[in-house]
Amino acid sequence: MTDFLDRCRALTGANHVLTAADDMAPYLTDWRGRTTGNALAVIRPADANEVAAIVKLCADARVPVVPQGGNTGLVAGSVPDRSGTAVVLSLKRLNRIRAIDPLNNTITVDAGCILEEVQNAATAAGRLFPLSLAAEGSCTIGGNLATNAGGTAVLRYGNMRELCLGLEVVTPQGEKWDGLRGLRKDNTGYDLRDLYIGAEGTLGIITGAVLKLFPQPKACLTALAALRTQDDAVALLASAQALCGAALTGFELMSQFSLALVTKHFPDMRLPFTEEHPQYALLEISDSESEEHATATLEALMSEAMERDLVTDAVVASSIAQSRALWNLREHITLAQAAEGKHIKHDVSIPISDIGRFIGETDNLLAQRFPGCRMLVFGHLGDGNLHYNVSAPEGMNDAQFIEQQEAVNRVVHDSVHRFAGSISAEHGLGELKRDEIRRYKSDTELRLMGVIKQALDPLGLMNPGKVL
Amino acid sequence: MTDFLDRCRALTGANHVLTAADDMAPYLTDWRGRTTGNALAVIRPADANEVAAIVKLCADARVPVVPQGGNTGLVAGSVPDRSGTAVVLSLKRLNRIRAIDPLNNTITVDAGCILEEVQNAATAAGRLFPLSLAAEGSCTIGGNLATNAGGTAVLRYGNMRELCLGLEVVTPQGEKWDGLRGLRKDNTGYDLRDLYIGAEGTLGIITGAVLKLFPQPKACLTALAALRTQDDAVALLASAQALCGAALTGFELMSQFSLALVTKHFPDMRLPFTEEHPQYALLEISDSESEEHATATLEALMSEAMERDLVTDAVVASSIAQSRALWNLREHITLAQAAEGKHIKHDVSIPISDIGRFIGETDNLLAQRFPGCRMLVFGHLGDGNLHYNVSAPEGMNDAQFIEQQEAVNRVVHDSVHRFAGSISAEHGLGELKRDEIRRYKSDTELRLMGVIKQALDPLGLMNPGKVL
Repeated sequence: MTDFLDRCRALTGANHVLTAADDMAPYLTDWRGRTTGNALAVIRPADANEVAAIVKLCADARVPVVPQGGNTGLVAGSVPDRSGTAVVLSLKRLNRIRAIDPLNNTITVDAGCILEEVQNAATAAGRLFPLSLAAEGSCTIGGNLATNAGGTAVLRYGNMRELCLGLEVVTPQGEKWDGLRGLRKDNTGYDLRDLYIGAEGTLGIITGAVLKLFPQPKACLTALAALRTQDDAVALLASAQALCGAALTGFELMSQFSLALVTKHFPDMRLPFTEEHPQYALLEISDSESEEHATATLEALMSEAMERDLVTDAVVASSIAQSRALWNLREHITLAQAAEGKHIKHDVSIPISDIGRFIGETDNLLAQRFPGCRMLVFGHLGDGNLHYNVSAPEGMNDAQFIEQQEAVNRVVHDSVHRFAGSISAEHGLGELKRDEIRRYKSDTELRLMGVIKQALDPLGLMNPGKVL
Repeated sequence: MTDFLDRCRALTGANHVLTAADDMAPYLTDWRGRTTGNALAVIRPADANEVAAIVKLCADARVPVVPQGGNTGLVAGSVPDRSGTAVVLSLKRLNRIRAIDPLNNTITVDAGCILEEVQNAATAAGRLFPLSLAAEGSCTIGGNLATNAGGTAVLRYGNMRELCLGLEVVTPQGEKWDGLRGLRKDNTGYDLRDLYIGAEGTLGIITGAVLKLFPQPKACLTALAALRTQDDAVALLASAQALCGAALTGFELMSQFSLALVTKHFPDMRLPFTEEHPQYALLEISDSESEEHATATLEALMSEAMERDLVTDAVVASSIAQSRALWNLREHITLAQAAEGKHIKHDVSIPISDIGRFIGETDNLLAQRFPGCRMLVFGHLGDGNLHYNVSAPEGMNDAQFIEQQEAVNRVVHDSVHRFAGSISAEHGLGELKRDEIRRYKSDTELRLMGVIKQALDPLGLMNPGKVL
């Protein structure tokens, strides 16, 4: 292996082949601290050609490769196993904005670009790159693509898959595939692009991408609606879609308990209602006309919904600052839950029409099996994507609760499966959900995934132990 | 083979295994009459399980399978070769609307459903299924998926790929994969769905799909703008996107010659301008508020564009009827061109910012090489998709002109390639463009396509001679 590492050093320069334990440490533990692995080395190539050359060396020496971007994933998909046989291939030096074409509404970037830098580059060119998620200050475009990231604007703009027009990929054989097309329409063969997107680095390494840009909206405004039930929230979603069309860019559901935890742990934050309500919906519209038009649209929607007795109370933000304050409530749920103590997270999606029944049935099953456990349910209702989290019963100690994690997962995921949902809506499988998915996928689907993996990566060197 | 056909008859009933020449004839010639093949039989299974059983019999007997929907494709992708060894597997009896879920905005359909029936079912449920194209009265959803169909609303709603959430597919081994998910977010493994979409039946047979629905707009209105250049049209597109956001559902470019042929061959049709202009843009907006709001938006856009001297003249439809009349001009271009005589069609896409340069350079190259040839350029500018067609010089006989087809294709496609475009934007490869694409794809991409084909269809029985 000394020989192999020397060849790597010759390619990237010695200072980009890290082997000292201290240097490697930040690359070996996942974001949530769930898994710590070992590596032969951490290699940081400068560009796509160096990535290709390193991967070729790895193939020749039969060294497994774990591609890593910002290492902000939630399912331990970008850290190596404990064997110490793999190299971590960090893409972070591939950080150039290669080109912006405002008239074609495209931006071409290296895979290691930080999401926020891409958003900023788009803004500077008078355009919007709409992917937005909590880790945007440190996650990379390559990781967003490898995990088909979601976030808060999927309702209008789609997942990362829908935001990508073209890719550059280094294959497990160390070839570079130039699929950097900036075209809205191209029907000339198999859709390799979408095969690499969401494959979590197990079929090849994404080194560059052409992403879609959009016009900047004139105003983004929000409203908060108080509701009795989740079904009423689903009905409000349908009204909002009919009235606002594609201007509706966000529709978040938050249970009473979710926001109660926010006001408990962040006493400065306040709900804009005098009474408590069982459910809340946060709506955002992105208006191409004006702030006034946005306000008028949201007000019309809310009055109609109150007349139909769908919504029991509502506030419409009359300024960007008020809009931010409402979003802040939503964004503090995760922090409030962490402050409250240990909890078990689920990232699921369900057909939207079944959301109410799914939550009701699952709540009941958990309450029977784990008396006193507290369900904290919120998420992107417009996409059918719920963060269905479970907090310990009051007074139970954390260790005792976390012992039940697998049993809690089983109840929730079995319920998701009965409702034809997904047990990983936007986080991917990584290492953490790799075994879990085998319970729910058909043999046919697992076989098809297996033959594709075998065909593209016959040596099984790309991010082993993830996805499959 | 008698034994094989007897087994097929036992499965579907004898009257659904056609072997008489007259019975088979409609299935053996492609829509444009470019290719006529032969077949062992035409088999018409009743449902997905029968499709699976027939494909299993074919695999056992090593009989190639050519799946066929409405047989309206433009690249000879759904007819067999001349060997007579294959069966045509017609999906047209799979014609059930399986389910509609308005709150989830999904419709689940058999692959053999006619596109127009799916549009109508959506309308009846108060929703919109936006795919729309000339053959919608006879093409099938399975064919739309297999070719990733485009059409007139891609700018807002995307291609068929973006309109599909889940698939049911029969593999070349005769297994049925149930991927009929109605989810906006699902990150649990490789994207098999997008691999089958656009694969033209060469990797498996799509038997069912879950498609996205949308709210019905309150009004669809159009405007026609007269312009000096294609670059001005591109600038107008950017303005329209900024002002209308996602309400802009169509943006078509038509050259002066395109519309001159329409008024020549359809004397009842008239342009709403007193003078001729070099270029025209047809804009459509789908408004979620009202017809008045739609008119006001288009009028604001056009006045601004005229003030900037981008647009030299413009009409905004003030009614649905006027809107139809403007669309009619666009829709008669193909008919007018056919009336004018033989022509050579190209379905290309180009980065939108390069459209003007591409047309200018290609026009020049063709004019030099084929003096007097007449370029008729129109298409979906909003998607960068041009129908760049070439008519014979006036007075040249058809046969003489068509002899030059390959040489004309070479000039146009080489030019497309130089501009990083696609030589098949929305029609697919089929048999007609299968060799052509090998000139332009990299060895790496062809190798990747090949190993995927080999992995999923190792016997090479699915729609042989198409795509690859």
